[in-house]
Amino acid sequence: MTTREMLTEANKVKAQVAALTPEEKNAALFAMADCLVGCTDAILAANAQDLAAAKDSVSEVMADRLRLDKKRIEGMAEGMRQVAALPDPVGRRLESITRPNGLKITKVSVPLGVVAIIYESRPNVTSDAAALCLKSGNVCVLRIGREAYRSASAIVEAMRAGLQKCGLDRRLVNLAEDTTRQSSADIMAATGLVDLLIPRGGKGLIDACVRNAKVPCIQTGTGICHVYVDAAADIGMALDIAENAKCSRPSVCNAMEVCLVNSAVAQDFLPELWRRLVAERAASPVLFKLDERAFAILGGRENCVPAGEGDFDREFLDYVMAVKVVDSVREAIGHIAVHSTGHSDCIITEDAAAADRFVNAVDSAAVYVNASTRFTDGGEFGLGCEMGISTQKLHARGPMGLNELTSYKYVVRGEGQIR
Amino acid sequence: MTTREMLTEANKVKAQVAALTPEEKNAALFAMADCLVGCTDAILAANAQDLAAAKDSVSEVMADRLRLDKKRIEGMAEGMRQVAALPDPVGRRLESITRPNGLKITKVSVPLGVVAIIYESRPNVTSDAAALCLKSGNVCVLRIGREAYRSASAIVEAMRAGLQKCGLDRRLVNLAEDTTRQSSADIMAATGLVDLLIPRGGKGLIDACVRNAKVPCIQTGTGICHVYVDAAADIGMALDIAENAKCSRPSVCNAMEVCLVNSAVAQDFLPELWRRLVAERAASPVLFKLDERAFAILGGRENCVPAGEGDFDREFLDYVMAVKVVDSVREAIGHIAVHSTGHSDCIITEDAAAADRFVNAVDSAAVYVNASTRFTDGGEFGLGCEMGISTQKLHARGPMGLNELTSYKYVVRGEGQIR
Repeated sequence: MTTREMLTEANKVKAQVAALTPEEKNAALFAMADCLVGCTDAILAANAQDLAAAKDSVSEVMADRLRLDKKRIEGMAEGMRQVAALPDPVGRRLESITRPNGLKITKVSVPLGVVAIIYESRPNVTSDAAALCLKSGNVCVLRIGREAYRSASAIVEAMRAGLQKCGLDRRLVNLAEDTTRQSSADIMAATGLVDLLIPRGGKGLIDACVRNAKVPCIQTGTGICHVYVDAAADIGMALDIAENAKCSRPSVCNAMEVCLVNSAVAQDFLPELWRRLVAERAASPVLFKLDERAFAILGGRENCVPAGEGDFDREFLDYVMAVKVVDSVREAIGHIAVHSTGHSDCIITEDAAAADRFVNAVDSAAVYVNASTRFTDGGEFGLGCEMGISTQKLHARGPMGLNELTSYKYVVRGEGQIR
Repeated sequence: MTTREMLTEANKVKAQVAALTPEEKNAALFAMADCLVGCTDAILAANAQDLAAAKDSVSEVMADRLRLDKKRIEGMAEGMRQVAALPDPVGRRLESITRPNGLKITKVSVPLGVVAIIYESRPNVTSDAAALCLKSGNVCVLRIGREAYRSASAIVEAMRAGLQKCGLDRRLVNLAEDTTRQSSADIMAATGLVDLLIPRGGKGLIDACVRNAKVPCIQTGTGICHVYVDAAADIGMALDIAENAKCSRPSVCNAMEVCLVNSAVAQDFLPELWRRLVAERAASPVLFKLDERAFAILGGRENCVPAGEGDFDREFLDYVMAVKVVDSVREAIGHIAVHSTGHSDCIITEDAAAADRFVNAVDSAAVYVNASTRFTDGGEFGLGCEMGISTQKLHARGPMGLNELTSYKYVVRGEGQIR
């Protein structure tokens, strides 16, 4: 089936999934989860084929993302059951007003329709995205990278078996058969057939979607996150947060990439930071890329190099960090305004006025005071799940949960009112 | 100044306007309104030039849209004062939660940043859009059609005088000097410099924006609105609503374009409808474009012709209406699913089950039961104002008021929490 045909088929079942009751959707999610576990052998066999084919062409990190095992499949099924347990996002009365002329206007949440997800080589996103789309009453169209296609296809077949057990249409969950660039291009161009496109993956994929999509698209992910250590920072707290934000999982978008340090504390703080992130981390020391003033303090130490061009605009996604000394909250805010991707930025300070100033002026999806940027996550924010983290301002910003996969409509009831 | 330069300048004052207090914004709106009235002579002189230049090239309808007079300018100023009186949309606490780990997360409404409006020849949109943008903390970038440029320029200069009286930057309100297609193209392509693009005008303009914009864009306006007269309709009410929806202002997007009539009542209803919309409206009778079954009932009467190809997919914006006989609510819903632009669709019925079925199944911004589609309007919905009517599902749907010109951010306050 061509991608265009798949999208046309997907649109035919929009009304079916939108009309499902919460109970029907949850029953389907449980059935799909059971089928996923029931099909473990088939999924692992497909995954083994993917791994074998990818052996020579992908890095070990990528192979690890691609690799499934019994436990991971159980985890995927458990994830689907957890989505079933969340509150239903459809049919919420967002507002109710009665106008002076007697019209009763209700703003009600409704599904978006067809949600397309273009992602790379993580097979687990397949069940994750399918569950969130079904729960929010949307038809889901998936497009995974070539190297993970067999795994995703086996996962989709398992989920479709679950749908069919509940008497639902297979086309509620769709996977593009074409894994060339053409299928992504077809999805991006399918005006009227795709209500929302969410790219999940690296900067190249996201930029391509934002640049080329003619369908509504949400920009996700890229995080050049800053931690600013203020003159009034609790230094112990600043060290804990900086270490956590940089080192707990450097490959994710909410990890710190840039540390800004107030000049009043730089002389004390930076050598301590170096001790925590380099000297005491023999296994995976952080590489410090230092601006001139920071280099004047740390230059000559192990893993300390001068920052090169572009280092303050780079998402390292690794044990690497750019460091800059600034003279004020104002200068920190100014730097962030120019260099942040609007994901997550943090101030460490005991000065309430400085905190308020930072919070008001920094225009990012999540602005932190005295906590690690690593908390920007649907689960950590209490949304129960996450379809990605939006770094744009339209529709959804920050972690996208089930509510962000809905739109709304106005229902207007009258007794013959005319204008 | 090139359009690109204007956009760059506009971005420099984003932080300034975002930081204004509600009182500062309202004072500016009042000062701008006063300056608008104070500059009446200059604005009328510019408008006279526009009218003279357009004399040979525009229709009388278009000239009427373009024409300003003392009263219209006073109306524009009054509109700005009314916007000042509305609740401030920025800084609303949309959600507040305390997580088990003690993190306090607040979701707060914030301005979008730079909002661009591309519009055609209505000079009054200039002050309207500027007021809504300022009130919502956004910098506004306007691009008007060539034939109204002098008028818009005089209006912008008057508003800028008001800004300057309040010590604010002129660049809070901007008008593209280039009135060729290039300026629209530049705005659509200005990724990173435009946070939201709203096209206001005809289908050609809107389609061009949706197709070409690389910046976030909201699809507005086109309305192929349906009124379905059910088997259980109150026929008197149906006649009143159909007449109002078609004839009260046929040039607007919330006017009815298609009347669907249940076959159980068609034989009685259609001749009555014809009497109200043709026989009793000598000055501006409606042209009926009839499907085969409707033509079998009304054929031969004055102003009744068979519907041609595409007539059920056309926004007539005139005293013209397509009419189709259907056999059930289900068939009406099916027709609307295929032909509606998702703006406003209505059922006339006394049958609560039919009403519910229609409301649940019709996927439009506004779904009506027993009221005219003409109510789809920011003012009529109680929003106090309107920046256009969105027919897309992302971000905003239906009438866009001040809240729809904002985004949000998460403010996360901790005491050193790490993950």
